Amino acid sequence: MPERTERLAEHPVAIASDHAGYGLKSDLIRLFSGRVAWLDLGTHSDESVDYPDYGYAVGRAIVEGRASRGVVICGSGVGISIAANRFPGVRAALCVDSTTARLARLHNDANVLALGARIVGIAVATDCLEVFLATEFEGGRHKRRVEKLRVTS
Amino acid sequence: MPERTERLAEHPVAIASDHAGYGLKSDLIRLFSGRVAWLDLGTHSDESVDYPDYGYAVGRAIVEGRASRGVVICGSGVGISIAANRFPGVRAALCVDSTTARLARLHNDANVLALGARIVGIAVATDCLEVFLATEFEGGRHKRRVEKLRVTS
Repeated sequence: MPERTERLAEHPVAIASDHAGYGLKSDLIRLFSGRVAWLDLGTHSDESVDYPDYGYAVGRAIVEGRASRGVVICGSGVGISIAANRFPGVRAALCVDSTTARLARLHNDANVLALGARIVGIAVATDCLEVFLATEFEGGRHKRRVEKLRVTS
Repeated sequence: MPERTERLAEHPVAIASDHAGYGLKSDLIRLFSGRVAWLDLGTHSDESVDYPDYGYAVGRAIVEGRASRGVVICGSGVGISIAANRFPGVRAALCVDSTTARLARLHNDANVLALGARIVGIAVATDCLEVFLATEFEGGRHKRRVEKLRVTS
């Protein structure tokens, strides 16, 4: 994306995938390089791995403050989004469209974008990531709800 | 669905939504009545409520064994799926297509279907629920991964 030069994220964005998401992860890292400081937590090949390990890696990076936002990718996006959401400080949004990505930022202050590499193609994934990184949380009545996501009751 | 009479779920299916999902929840309860024993955990009107409360209600019903599966609905499906996934025994899949619903059952043994009432219409939601309830977990290599979703490490 040489025509877009503005910085999309001030802090590192953690990214991880299983083998099914490895290709899409590589493409997104390349397409957003220069605009995003990536923290690539693997996997680093097509060799079969377990998606929870990679969802947890991004979750830990978020809660430990090593990254402000994250991207997680598996085949459908379901498994790795479940893993990331095990952390009370993570709000992972599985998106197959940029409308959901926008609403997830506006209303849920989502800090992790989850994608399914066997569900969406690169154009949709790019749109989702662009909107996810550029949209600010709306606050207001949504703040109370987001706070409730920190304490399971 | 008078033409379909087979039972889709042996045990109660918990269902809950916020105000944005109230209409879709009512429609799904009606359309699947007779085939599904619903445990309706609210909300019961269009009055504004907080989605985490309803995601937690379904999560608790699953982990306490009052329901074998669940359905959660909010505007985008994102917020309430995050809430449900706070429980290590819950695997909530946000779906906007029946392919994802099928993969979520086959590979993730998803026990909660999350829907966005402002993202999908009744036909898509019906297809997702039909597939979610009718598809069995594939097991095999997916079993180890699902077990890892029980213990965040």
